[in-house]
Parts: sequence; structure tokens; C-alpha cells
Amino acid sequence: MTQTSTPAATTGHARDESFLRAFEELSRFGATPAGGVDREAASPEHGAARTWLTEQLTAAGHTVEVDRIGNLFGLLELVPGAPYVVVGSHLDSQPLGGRFDGAYGVLAAAEAATRVKALVQSGEVTPSANIAVVDWFNEEGSRFKPSMMGSAVFCGTLPLEKALATQDTAGTTVASALEDIDSTGTADVFGAGRPDRRVAAYGEIHIEQGRELEDHGVTIGLVDRTWAANKYELRVHGAQGHTGATAIADRHDALLGASMIVVALRDIADRFGPELHTSCGQLTVLPNSPVVVPRQVDMHLDLRSDNDELLAAADAVLRERIAEAEQRAAVRVEQRASHVWRGHRYPPAGVELARAVTEELGMSSMVVPTRAGHDSTNMKELVPTVMLFVPSVEGVSHAETELTSDADLLSGVAVFTRTLSRMVEGDLS
Amino acid sequence: MTQTSTPAATTGHARDESFLRAFEELSRFGATPAGGVDREAASPEHGAARTWLTEQLTAAGHTVEVDRIGNLFGLLELVPGAPYVVVGSHLDSQPLGGRFDGAYGVLAAAEAATRVKALVQSGEVTPSANIAVVDWFNEEGSRFKPSMMGSAVFCGTLPLEKALATQDTAGTTVASALEDIDSTGTADVFGAGRPDRRVAAYGEIHIEQGRELEDHGVTIGLVDRTWAANKYELRVHGAQGHTGATAIADRHDALLGASMIVVALRDIADRFGPELHTSCGQLTVLPNSPVVVPRQVDMHLDLRSDNDELLAAADAVLRERIAEAEQRAAVRVEQRASHVWRGHRYPPAGVELARAVTEELGMSSMVVPTRAGHDSTNMKELVPTVMLFVPSVEGVSHAETELTSDADLLSGVAVFTRTLSRMVEGDLS
Repeated sequence: MTQTSTPAATTGHARDESFLRAFEELSRFGATPAGGVDREAASPEHGAARTWLTEQLTAAGHTVEVDRIGNLFGLLELVPGAPYVVVGSHLDSQPLGGRFDGAYGVLAAAEAATRVKALVQSGEVTPSANIAVVDWFNEEGSRFKPSMMGSAVFCGTLPLEKALATQDTAGTTVASALEDIDSTGTADVFGAGRPDRRVAAYGEIHIEQGRELEDHGVTIGLVDRTWAANKYELRVHGAQGHTGATAIADRHDALLGASMIVVALRDIADRFGPELHTSCGQLTVLPNSPVVVPRQVDMHLDLRSDNDELLAAADAVLRERIAEAEQRAAVRVEQRASHVWRGHRYPPAGVELARAVTEELGMSSMVVPTRAGHDSTNMKELVPTVMLFVPSVEGVSHAETELTSDADLLSGVAVFTRTLSRMVEGDLS
Repeated sequence: MTQTSTPAATTGHARDESFLRAFEELSRFGATPAGGVDREAASPEHGAARTWLTEQLTAAGHTVEVDRIGNLFGLLELVPGAPYVVVGSHLDSQPLGGRFDGAYGVLAAAEAATRVKALVQSGEVTPSANIAVVDWFNEEGSRFKPSMMGSAVFCGTLPLEKALATQDTAGTTVASALEDIDSTGTADVFGAGRPDRRVAAYGEIHIEQGRELEDHGVTIGLVDRTWAANKYELRVHGAQGHTGATAIADRHDALLGASMIVVALRDIADRFGPELHTSCGQLTVLPNSPVVVPRQVDMHLDLRSDNDELLAAADAVLRERIAEAEQRAAVRVEQRASHVWRGHRYPPAGVELARAVTEELGMSSMVVPTRAGHDSTNMKELVPTVMLFVPSVEGVSHAETELTSDADLLSGVAVFTRTLSRMVEGDLS
């Protein structure tokens, strides 16, 4: 395990050691030699991690149910018939991803639920709500697009049937992949199919995936807003030819067109400055043979910013640059899909609740945005929501070297526990 | 079948129709809806085409033998104990490739052998050599690298064991793939293992993969030289990160580095003019997830020219541009392999023999270079060699729309037959 880098005095809970051990156990599912995890949605490793989580939750008194898009809920009834505070994150990872992204949030939620249950039993907390710990299906979106799939279906912004029919690059559907890991729920856990169950609020804790907390020496991030994101799926249409024999003037080189767009993305980032992030993470070439001019390239781009106007300006420049690429490479660029997530505020009451809790616990906190999407980005549109960050060393994420210190993990659990107890008492409902 | 576009008066051989029918049959193995073939080396389709060829050759009186790298020879003995004139090309294709590239040369060689055999039987040709028709293994190099593998092993420039151990992207070795199509020869057909058999000369006919013949309205190309080629395998090393969360300044974006190199290739082609071809045909991104900054890109580049000095100058500029890409993208570019094929002359005697034959037949011809590599590029270093081209519509190749008219196919067979008969009579030996 990692060394603690800051005093853990404020997090000296009797269960801290067992939490760290449990996190170490969870990190073994899909563990990579370099210290990360490779646990894509509905992979055997994800399935094994879910089986382990189910055992942990069941032992802690939860009833585990899976809904039709594969969201796994551990229901802990404290007040029969009362609504639920849902807390969690996701166990799936990127290929060669980090062990903290998502998994920490699920386990911290389970730990907080157990601690709050003890506080209820000892009479220190008087509940007006129940607790459900959740592992949202396919938050990462590396195997099945879009990302945040499970929470999007849960929130009604993505149709269930469309999500289930989504295929990975091997042609496996989500429906079939869920069967592979025995995660095919047959009914709603909440929602239309269960009118007797209501969600009162949502809470999530996650590593920052940025370096603002670290740079400021602050322990807890209070997420008050998401960056807006424009995501684009492009297909560049060229014509296949022999790389030796086809004259440059006769080429329709799909890879040249695509490469010009990748370079344009960086030019645009340089032009607009640090308020804009631009990326191309996925690019697939056909036929991808050394001696063949590529006939087709599929690519996924994103532009992200805290500033909607700046994003619109960047989008306009991108379109100009795509037109230039079409001309020089003699190709046609087809926009096959685009998703626009506008920047959004998290509910101020949730930010304020978490800020008050950090004060009570004597921990440092600051308001931060999230540049990455999270399941809470979906849930905050549905119910009052709290989103917390703990520091991530050098802001590394989606990589095996992702790291958060034990002390910060435990501080996060302490803050999240107290926040959850306030939510269970009805603070945000 | 395609329509004839020029008069076929000079090719009015009784067997012409049966040749076109046979070519149509051969084109069915791996046929694609768009009129091409998808018949990569040692694919089931390639195996099926070889079985068909074996039946054709056997019926025509050849004895079929396969050597240890999977080159398939149809031996036609005319003079017991005499050396062999080897003629042929390759049945494998690029993914979604054309039906003429390689396959025409194999079938034209088989047809020419049959016609020469008849001329021997009728006393019109007095042979001093035997004939072997060959399907060289893995000329295309799309599945297993390098291209022209079978002829390179045959000529001793590529070690047999290294070739057999070469893997495709799925990890299948050449040795195992040859077993899959039942093409594992256990002994030499020529060479060290068969000191009783000697190769006297080599002949090949192929579509031009360029448009010089078409542009000049000429029927037969007499190949007198190859373009030189520099081939490079690069690995761009970056660092995986979250596309939303990782600041642009913190990125080590392997795809940005690779894209800058692809764009640089076109800049270099534009700078040096039509005597230089530059390409990147293969580019593979890891982890290739929409929301992950790529950690690694593998790419295959080539620079080709008729002019060795120009090629060296282009190589120097490429290296400067790679250094620029390393700096801007904050990546490291590793050169994993490079192959340099210098430009080479084909033996003038072979060019002159073929020119004389076209004159005798009243066909137009011109001297042309080949920009693409061929098995004859290897063989010409070993024995006297003739390499002929027929026109290819708009110079399209390595694409399903590759097309040569029936008339040009038949003209090619006529010239190749007469050239082979002269070689069998000892003209080049």
C-alpha cells in the first residue's frame, strides 16, 4: 500500500485499517504489474469485483439487486418505506487504468453506509431515509459508448433498449456482456417498476483527476460545477491505394486528413489557453496495412471547457480546420455523432453541506470544478447531489500510476460518512 | 467480367476465352461485393485459391511441390535434368484488395507454360530448360511483415526460421498459419536441399500499379528499374491520461506526436515533388479509448523515390520533423526497425528480350520503373529476370476498384508466352 503523506489524526476511525485492507483486496481484480487495474465494463475482472462487492455488502446487511442496465445496488433499510439516499460510483476502469478512479468511491460509500448504520444503532443518528450503495454500470465508456451509461439510463436520458443493443468493437452487445458477468437484472430497482422506492438524494466521492487540491495543499474538493464538453465522432472517407504506386496528387489519404485534425486540436488548445482542453483519444485506421493508403479513419474528439462561449468559439475554429483537412487530403469528413454536455452547476445546498462537514471535522476544503464527467453529472439533474474529491498525486488519472495517499483516502471516508449521516437525517431532501 | 476496351486482334489465341474464364474462377476466392478480393496470406481464401491452382497445374501436367516457407511450385519437366525457368507472382492480396494484383501474374504464368508446352510438343520450340510456375508466399506483407517474404527466403536474404516465427497482430506465426492452409512444405524445392535442380531465369508479369502505360496508350511495360524505398517502423511513447482532466501542459500525447509525423510526410512530399512518394499506411493507437490521452502509437512509414540522393535528403528532413514532434507532443519516438531497398536496375538483357518480343507481336511497349516492390525485385539479384507490366485503369491498386481490360490481360499473356518460350530456348541463360 501507499505511504500516508499527511497526518491522519482527523480520520482515526477504528475501521480505517479494515477499509484500507478492503481497498487493497478490491484492487486485486484486474491488477496490473505496474500497480493499476485493467477492468473494463463487463469484463471477467469487473464481474469478479462485483461478486466480491456483493459479498461485502451482503455481510454488512445490504440486499443486493441489479437493474436492467446492470447497475448494482446494495440496499440498506433503516426506515421501512422511507426514500433512499443513493451513494456510490463505479468499479469499471479504463484499459490499463488506475485503481482509485471509481472503485474508491464505491468502497467509500459502502464503508460510510456501515458507519452510519452503526451511528443509527447507537442512537447518534436518527434516520429519515434508507441507504443504497451503487456500482453504476459502464461509467468509463472505453468498451461501450457512451460513458456514464448506467446512470444515464437510470436518469432516463438514454433509452434502455438502445444501451443494451450497444456493441463493443468485437460486436458484443451490452446485453450479452451483462449476461457474461451474470449481471442481468430483470426489473427496475428504483423508478417506474418500483413505485414503492424513491431516491431522495445522491452522493459520490472520487479522486480529483486534476491537481488543484494538491497544488493548494487542500484535502477535500467541493465540486460546484462540471466543465462543458463537446464530443464528436468523425469518419474520414478516403480511397485505398498502393503507397508505392499511387501518385501523391491522386491520393485520398484518410489518415492524412485525420492527422491534420489531431494537430488542429492542439493548435486550438494553444490558441484558447488553459480554459480549454482538446483531445483525440481514439483513432482507428482501415485497412491499416503498411503499404496501403488508408481508405477510412474513425476518430473520437472532445473539446472541454468551463466556459460555454469559449467552447462555441473553439468549435467554430475546429470546423474550419476540418474543412482545410478535407481539402488538402482530398477526403470527406462525416460527422457521425456528437454529444454536447453543457456546463452545469451542482446544487449549492450540497456544496454547502459538505463544506460545513469539513469545517466540523477541521479539514481543509476548496470549491473545484470537475473537468471529467461522473455519474453524479447525470444524477444531479434528478435529485439533490453532493460530489466530493480527494487529491490525486500530480493529477494523474486513467493511468496505472494514479495515486492517492492512504491519509487522503481515509479523510475522504470520514467526510463522506458525516455527509451521508446528514443526508440520511434528511438534510438535503 | 470487364469489357474489352481495345482491340484484341493481336491476342487471338484459341485459349484466350478459357484463360479469361479461369481468371474469373480464381477471382471468386475471397471475392468482395465491390469486385475486389480479400485474400491475405494464409487466409482460408488464400488456401482455397491454392487448392484450385494446384488442381489446374496438375491437370496441365505440372508436379506441385511446396517449399518450407510456403512457396508453391508447379514443375513442368520438358528436358530431364535441365535447369528451370521460374515464372509466376502471388495469389495473396491486401485486405479489400484488387483481383488482378499478383493473381493475374500467377495465372498468366500457368497459361504461358501450357502454351509453351504445346509449342514444344508441336516442334515449334526446342527447349533447353524446364518450367516452374510459382505462387510466392506472402508478397503483400499486410498480415505478416515484411512483404515479399517467400521470395526473400528463396533468395537467401531473409532467414527461414525468422520468417516462420513472424507473427501477425493476433499472435499467429507464419509456421502455424501455413499449417492452417495445409501449405507446410518439408523440404527445399530448389536450393541447397535440391542440388539436382537449378534456376536458370525468372519471369513475372503484373498490373502496372501506376498510370504511365494508360497515359501513353501503351500495352506493355518493360520494367528496367525499381524505385528505392526506405521503410520505417516507429513507436511513439507518451503517457496515458484523462482527456478531460489532464492539463494540456501535462500531456505526453503519443497520437499528437504520430499525427505530426503523418502531416510532416505530406509536407516533405510537397517539398520534393513527384519524384518522391511518402506514406503512412499503418497506425495503431493504445489504449484507443475516447477519453484517454494515448500512451503509445505504432506506425509504419515509407519514403520511395527513383533517386537515391533525393531519398537521403528526404530522410534527413523527416528526422528533423520527428524531433519537432517529440518536442511539441512531449513524447519519445523510438525507431524500431527500418528496411532500406536501394533502387536497382533489372538486367538489361531481360528488358531487351521483352522489347524484341513486343515488336515481333506488333504491340506497343515502353520502358517504365516500378514504384512498388515485387518478387522479381528479389529474384533479379539471383538470376536473369524479365518483369512486364500491363496497364491498370487510372493506376488504381491495392483497392477493390483495381481494373485491367480483358484485351490488356490477353495481350500480356501473349507477350509473356513468347518471352517464356525464348527463355525456355535458353535466351537469357
